[in-house]
Amino acid sequence: FPLNLTADCNAVLKALQPIFQEQGMTETVHNWEDHGYLATYIKKNGSFANLRIHPHGLVLVDLQSYNDHTKGREEVDQLLNKVEERMKELFHGNIKRVKRLPAILRGGVIDRYWPTADGRLVEYDIDEVVYDEDSPFQNIKILHSKQFGNILILSGDVNLAESDLAYTQAIMGSGKEDYTGKEVLILGGGDGGILYEIVKLKPKMVTMVALNIDQMVIDGCKKYMRKTCGDVLDNLKGECYQVLIEDCIPVLKRYAKEGRMFDYVINDLTAVPISTSPEEDSTWEFLRLILDLSMKVLKQDGKYFTQ
Amino acid sequence: FPLNLTADCNAVLKALQPIFQEQGMTETVHNWEDHGYLATYIKKNGSFANLRIHPHGLVLVDLQSYNDHTKGREEVDQLLNKVEERMKELFHGNIKRVKRLPAILRGGVIDRYWPTADGRLVEYDIDEVVYDEDSPFQNIKILHSKQFGNILILSGDVNLAESDLAYTQAIMGSGKEDYTGKEVLILGGGDGGILYEIVKLKPKMVTMVALNIDQMVIDGCKKYMRKTCGDVLDNLKGECYQVLIEDCIPVLKRYAKEGRMFDYVINDLTAVPISTSPEEDSTWEFLRLILDLSMKVLKQDGKYFTQ
Repeated sequence: FPLNLTADCNAVLKALQPIFQEQGMTETVHNWEDHGYLATYIKKNGSFANLRIHPHGLVLVDLQSYNDHTKGREEVDQLLNKVEERMKELFHGNIKRVKRLPAILRGGVIDRYWPTADGRLVEYDIDEVVYDEDSPFQNIKILHSKQFGNILILSGDVNLAESDLAYTQAIMGSGKEDYTGKEVLILGGGDGGILYEIVKLKPKMVTMVALNIDQMVIDGCKKYMRKTCGDVLDNLKGECYQVLIEDCIPVLKRYAKEGRMFDYVINDLTAVPISTSPEEDSTWEFLRLILDLSMKVLKQDGKYFTQ
Repeated sequence: FPLNLTADCNAVLKALQPIFQEQGMTETVHNWEDHGYLATYIKKNGSFANLRIHPHGLVLVDLQSYNDHTKGREEVDQLLNKVEERMKELFHGNIKRVKRLPAILRGGVIDRYWPTADGRLVEYDIDEVVYDEDSPFQNIKILHSKQFGNILILSGDVNLAESDLAYTQAIMGSGKEDYTGKEVLILGGGDGGILYEIVKLKPKMVTMVALNIDQMVIDGCKKYMRKTCGDVLDNLKGECYQVLIEDCIPVLKRYAKEGRMFDYVINDLTAVPISTSPEEDSTWEFLRLILDLSMKVLKQDGKYFTQ
């Protein structure tokens, strides 16, 4: 409850404390004077509540309980309804906002919280841990979401879900390119999505170069992300494609030296790409090296796609 | 920290308490016996921590502080690093998972938390409140997100963002329909997205029927969701379209009686549609009425699209 006015901390405490005491909760109050009050309410069943009253006008209520029963949730709702009612009686129109957040579930077998790369909290509707393995380089998880299908998560970073065909289509040029009879080079793309979609379009030859640190990613995807990769990862070679488990830098150098040219280079490496033998000092220099080498193996009317 | 074994609550408390005490925090311990321990640590600056130790093997740490400075976050990270280190010393390989969630920001001017319809917690990268009005029927918010552009939120439910062209394209038939010279009826669609996209395709006439309770939605969208609706909501009539601010049921009945027929009916009403004069008892009956009436105004080779 952010308020439009400063709060009389003692008045708030006196107004709300009966609600917790009616639940048979034991109160402990800490008074900071300058920084307001913290009241902790403890219930016999192991639940507890924190009531934090900031004198400049902010009242926060946290409830924590070990309980996954619906009954527990209903009790929580009833308690919060009473708190809301009492606060409205006390402050009338001076409550800026009443916000109740969904319960955060911790300690369960399934972890539903996968923050975004920019640190935002996102809860997914995960209902199954499909794959969970540690490679020497990273943790590889594939979790099933009702909304998105199987989701590939590398060391906590959400990479791609089976429903993310739009990502693959976008990095392929949003359906505006004709891949028929073309030579294509994919850098990275260990989930097999781009390879699978391009192979459908009758290219001459697609070469995908993925690091060996991705081997376990490929193993997981070929088994559990088949909506994304179909059967293209089952074998590392097909009629019109090959998968090289190698660092892309030496491969690009070799192709450049041999004069091997492509109609399309699709760079699907991770945002901060990994090399097994980095020769460049900074990430930017490394990104430039990949771009320079890609240009060298691109036909004059060729196209380069990346995120 | 979910553990693989039962926890000696007292040993955990003894191991972790120096970390909090080094910060000059005052400890209060509650011992439930059967349900483990709750230790509350209070700092002079108004911050506090809860350490909850469940005897079956779950240790939870919550930190709460009033502080939006980077310094505060660094302090929190350092404290949590120490807790993690000490826990690993204590339990070695018996910690199932260590999970640190991003801080939840409460009480600020901008509310970043907009749970999904199925109650999952999602934090958006909102940086501006663009529009915030209460109509007699609902609260209408348009918030700016760096990722999604302006987002329309009706009474707390995320409706549509400016980046959601894919939704509009999907409900129009995913680019597979030819709307040139066609008669189209849109039910709902107050954000103007469908109308704007179809008008571009040179239809004969598009009629959109939106309830008057949506007038403030239309007002907000026409000003702040222009990437979605362009200029089609500026006037309720254009060369090849008209917007009727009416309940769709009587309009559909009138059209059916008059024998007015459409090539396409696109139902973009809310998941639980609202009528100003409901004659049906249940939501399902109401949905069926809309479907039946829609079929009556649809040409024999016409198409009906909905979510």
